[in-house]
Amino acid sequence: MIIRQAELADFDAIWPLLREVFRSGTTYAVDPAISKDDARVYWMAAARATYVAEGAGGIVGTYYIKTNQPGGGAHICNCGYIVAPSARGQGLAGRMCDHSQQEARALGYTAMQFNFVLDSNDGAVRLWQRLGFAIVGTIPDAFDHPSKGMVSAYVMHKRL
Amino acid sequence: MIIRQAELADFDAIWPLLREVFRSGTTYAVDPAISKDDARVYWMAAARATYVAEGAGGIVGTYYIKTNQPGGGAHICNCGYIVAPSARGQGLAGRMCDHSQQEARALGYTAMQFNFVLDSNDGAVRLWQRLGFAIVGTIPDAFDHPSKGMVSAYVMHKRL
Repeated sequence: MIIRQAELADFDAIWPLLREVFRSGTTYAVDPAISKDDARVYWMAAARATYVAEGAGGIVGTYYIKTNQPGGGAHICNCGYIVAPSARGQGLAGRMCDHSQQEARALGYTAMQFNFVLDSNDGAVRLWQRLGFAIVGTIPDAFDHPSKGMVSAYVMHKRL
Repeated sequence: MIIRQAELADFDAIWPLLREVFRSGTTYAVDPAISKDDARVYWMAAARATYVAEGAGGIVGTYYIKTNQPGGGAHICNCGYIVAPSARGQGLAGRMCDHSQQEARALGYTAMQFNFVLDSNDGAVRLWQRLGFAIVGTIPDAFDHPSKGMVSAYVMHKRL
């Protein structure tokens, strides 16, 4: 398994990973009906950089790095990670997060922030905490989860 | 003084208010060198609605309402407010905030969130607290202030 920067041509292989997660409407604050073109803008064109995790069977993970706020806030980045169903439970999200922190440092960022980690997404919250991210905010009833109703969202932050 | 919805033609009068605040780089996480066209997108095209406060001498205040997050987060709005230097200290920011809460309710939002209120902006923090907003998050060293160095930013939230 290697993690490398994505090229535009990779998006056809990235899209099924995003589509499954976005359509579910359970973890990302993205319109569940988002089009492939809009997803490409969200994941690649609007990002500072996009990466893929590639194994023998193809692309099984992807993440982006974005500048979280322009102007005086541009030293903090934001990332989003998605792992293919076939590759879950093998530590890939953590590996991508470690990789993203190295890349973010190389790009000059001094901190990383996740703006919207749902408290219903226990696994993610625990993983980010284990990797050194702190909960710095809690937005009550931030997300209308299709099966759990209103759930809160955490803002998580780590200095790089 | 009336507060009314802005029309595209109002932007020529809105722009000087935005320009003064954005160029200062002291309160908004916006590129201080933002162009007029990009500011129009930020303040009007990307907003759900934009308003102006208009007195005898013209437009002296403006605010926008945006959906803060798409998908499952679309019930929370975000607003930004700017008052002209000539109209400061007269309660106009508070009046616009009250107005925006009514408009937001009418648009179907159930909460309002400010994502990035600098702790160096004491007046704003105190005003939003007086109007019922709670600090639900604190992002350390979130903003590189041109004279104060790194300052923290609050996430502030109010149910509507």
